[in-house]
Amino acid sequence: MSVPDVRVIEVGLRDGLQMVKAILPTASKLAFIAAAYAAGIREMQIGSFVPASRMPQFADTPQVVDYAHRYAGLHGAVMVPNIKGALAALEAGADQLNLPVSASAAHSQANVKTTPDLMISNVARVRELRDAQPEGRRPRIKVGLATAFGCTLQGEVPEAEVERLAIAAIAAGADSVSLSDTTGYADPAKVRRLFNRVRAAAGDQVDTAHFHDTRGLGLANVVAALDCGIRRFDASLAGLGGCPHAPGASGNIVTEDLVFMLQSMGLDTGISVDQLLAMRALLRDGLPEEPLQGSLWKAGVTKTYREHANG
Amino acid sequence: MSVPDVRVIEVGLRDGLQMVKAILPTASKLAFIAAAYAAGIREMQIGSFVPASRMPQFADTPQVVDYAHRYAGLHGAVMVPNIKGALAALEAGADQLNLPVSASAAHSQANVKTTPDLMISNVARVRELRDAQPEGRRPRIKVGLATAFGCTLQGEVPEAEVERLAIAAIAAGADSVSLSDTTGYADPAKVRRLFNRVRAAAGDQVDTAHFHDTRGLGLANVVAALDCGIRRFDASLAGLGGCPHAPGASGNIVTEDLVFMLQSMGLDTGISVDQLLAMRALLRDGLPEEPLQGSLWKAGVTKTYREHANG
Repeated sequence: MSVPDVRVIEVGLRDGLQMVKAILPTASKLAFIAAAYAAGIREMQIGSFVPASRMPQFADTPQVVDYAHRYAGLHGAVMVPNIKGALAALEAGADQLNLPVSASAAHSQANVKTTPDLMISNVARVRELRDAQPEGRRPRIKVGLATAFGCTLQGEVPEAEVERLAIAAIAAGADSVSLSDTTGYADPAKVRRLFNRVRAAAGDQVDTAHFHDTRGLGLANVVAALDCGIRRFDASLAGLGGCPHAPGASGNIVTEDLVFMLQSMGLDTGISVDQLLAMRALLRDGLPEEPLQGSLWKAGVTKTYREHANG
Repeated sequence: MSVPDVRVIEVGLRDGLQMVKAILPTASKLAFIAAAYAAGIREMQIGSFVPASRMPQFADTPQVVDYAHRYAGLHGAVMVPNIKGALAALEAGADQLNLPVSASAAHSQANVKTTPDLMISNVARVRELRDAQPEGRRPRIKVGLATAFGCTLQGEVPEAEVERLAIAAIAAGADSVSLSDTTGYADPAKVRRLFNRVRAAAGDQVDTAHFHDTRGLGLANVVAALDCGIRRFDASLAGLGGCPHAPGASGNIVTEDLVFMLQSMGLDTGISVDQLLAMRALLRDGLPEEPLQGSLWKAGVTKTYREHANG
């Protein structure tokens, strides 16, 4: 199989479920992973190591991690908000630990009651724990710089602060950093400015864009990030998850719309849009109360669309 | 008043109403124009000179054209599909005559039962009629190259054909040409390729992009067109009009979302997003059965948004 031009990372089973009250049954999660893999997805966020009392929707994460190992070449990432979560994720054998760091001090305080810098010190401790693991059981460490483009609480997030935290995250041992537009504050000009600035200062390990479509600019921001050399994008099937700050508004950019756009542009993702569109039924059945987002499903692909851009 | 960086052309009262069965009352159209002008819009499509028996929603176009003249600096364009329409538009004193030419031969045959080249010969005749008018009553002539990015009937539309027709339209006397993605076939890579190619061959009079949001790529395509130097975009408030080929899918890109994106990028449009958002109520009242599209209205503007990018 050829290497895709762009890697689309499906985050529906983690970021997508974060705010969903209903619990997606474990069997539905496993069916989702199987279908996503069959559609060509090779990297997914599949759970979160948080107390089950706080987020029961992630109580089955060890099981889900275990299941994902059945699929050759599937890279399964889990969220670990703290050291306890990191230890559990190492124990479960996850392929990647995602650590959140809010670039906005106000967002950090509200969300995790601590400062961005203390979250960075967590990254260093997780890196030590990871490196102490036996070979073959050392997951990648990825830092998601949340609210990198602005914040509903404090408004502006200084670009210098995002740059500083990206450098600090890599110094602390992150293998990869994403700039995350947690609340839909990014625009294409800001995306270009910030990615170019932060990558110039912190290097190419700042390699992933995480956009929300809160105000409809999600795919426009992807175009801007592509121009900066970004080739890794988080997205969520049917935009699962919505927006906690704006009822009815979209959450993550929609995987099937993103893949359609990229492949229409001649950028292969290795993913089948037809199969992604069919997967919407899984979510409709598993989470009947959740609104499903997206545009492509209404009109279907164009007559000129090819499933494999380089095929 | 300063010159805006980007001109957003409101097409709701023409392209937006084209497929709407219900008739927007004349009073609502006039209120729409007044509100759009107050919001800062200075260019609008306001009607169509077609037989009222076929399209009763445009029977009041002469009245609407007359009303628009009350507003200093407001440029009112009307669609004239044929010579008869052009004569009526000249008589009414419209500021601009828009002539459609399908780049797709199949679409041209299905829509107007003639070839693209015969439509171009109409442009030449309209140019003669226009030039024969007394000074001060010579409207601009704009050709919209429909299905320039692909066609639901014939699929691929050769880029060489779009280039040829753009050159022909300008040779026939068009002052301005738009490339129109009538059916949502454009993607950002194609937008860059086609605009750069056609402008290199036909010149900067190819100055307007007309995108539909059928598959969610509308604003992403705007970003690509901005990169080509395009500074004129058609859009429709609340995405009025929908898509004739895909029930439920979006039609024109949404004016308020577009203005929000442009101004967030630091490109001033001279238009107030707040006032645009308030205008959605006009459409809801005037066309209660029509679905309204858009993303921004759900979440509202960001805390960091400024109404005048250069203000």
